[in-house]
Amino acid sequence: MADTSRDGERSEAEEAIMRATYRALCEHGYADLTMRAIAEEYGKTTAAIHYHYETKDDLLVALLEYLLDRFVAHVHDVETTGPEARLEALLDTLISERTDDHDLLVAILEMRAQAPYDEAMRDQLVHNDEYLRYLLRTVVADGVEQGVFAADVDPSRAAETLMTFVDGARTRFVVSGDPDVLRHAREAADRYVADALDAE
Amino acid sequence: MADTSRDGERSEAEEAIMRATYRALCEHGYADLTMRAIAEEYGKTTAAIHYHYETKDDLLVALLEYLLDRFVAHVHDVETTGPEARLEALLDTLISERTDDHDLLVAILEMRAQAPYDEAMRDQLVHNDEYLRYLLRTVVADGVEQGVFAADVDPSRAAETLMTFVDGARTRFVVSGDPDVLRHAREAADRYVADALDAE
Repeated sequence: MADTSRDGERSEAEEAIMRATYRALCEHGYADLTMRAIAEEYGKTTAAIHYHYETKDDLLVALLEYLLDRFVAHVHDVETTGPEARLEALLDTLISERTDDHDLLVAILEMRAQAPYDEAMRDQLVHNDEYLRYLLRTVVADGVEQGVFAADVDPSRAAETLMTFVDGARTRFVVSGDPDVLRHAREAADRYVADALDAE
Repeated sequence: MADTSRDGERSEAEEAIMRATYRALCEHGYADLTMRAIAEEYGKTTAAIHYHYETKDDLLVALLEYLLDRFVAHVHDVETTGPEARLEALLDTLISERTDDHDLLVAILEMRAQAPYDEAMRDQLVHNDEYLRYLLRTVVADGVEQGVFAADVDPSRAAETLMTFVDGARTRFVVSGDPDVLRHAREAADRYVADALDAE
């Protein structure tokens, strides 16, 4: 599970295709996404994409990996002092109130709903989730070790509870489109940290 | 929001169509659901269904209402003594560990991911969510009034936090298929009730 992210293994073309896929997905949504739309964003032919990614499914699985890499790079950039501040930074990124994320979160929820029908997509979604839980678990475990979180906290369980919050908030935001959902979930996560994790 | 459920307003034929739609949806999933598959489950022609429901979308919106009615009837049947036991019963039903619910939860997640593209579906999903939050809020407010929950608890916010848990657990269960996800979320909800709601 300490499987590292594969940032840097992409060629320049693959990076550009990922950015094009990202933009096309946000614009068209998962169900209406076509190779043609991605090629238009990429500014080249669909054949140029097929050279790197055989099917639309391959592209979307690769995109999920790309999004995880971006997330990991983003949180590595955040300079923080202790486990509490690092947990805060992770939660800020996982439950961001940026309403311009709505299109992306819609597309991700479509992919999640697709997971039971698509093994490659499910495997990548499960991998992403495991990696996010690994990041949360490590921060919580460091906090327990340093005495800022209570000694009886189970880091794995705490990470899973926090991801349940994150996923609930995202699902609810997709359906309602109401950014208050994210703000309130972020507050509830803080409340959970204060009540269930913080050392007295 | 105290909008009552419309149980009993359905004709016998409509009840039978709802049960057939439910079975067909669990078997085929949302994307592959056809009027023909529903008609097969119903044991009549698609015309017999169209007489009551014009489109597949009408049927699915009606099904969401039917599922809410079933939920409300089920929780009304549960004889409980105080707010804590009633909250427990609601959470038991909302985060049930019945793995045979997986097909239905997959279909519901597909409908949720569809919400941004389908106004009628979004409205019904938002209605269902509002009704569930209303049930939770009422129980929490009763508990605050009776002194079993702390006086400073905000019943609306507590209901929203609990629904975020429920929705997170369901989304995660759809993707992973792992029933532990539901069990752990149920335990985390109990922990939230003990830490954030219970009067000292």
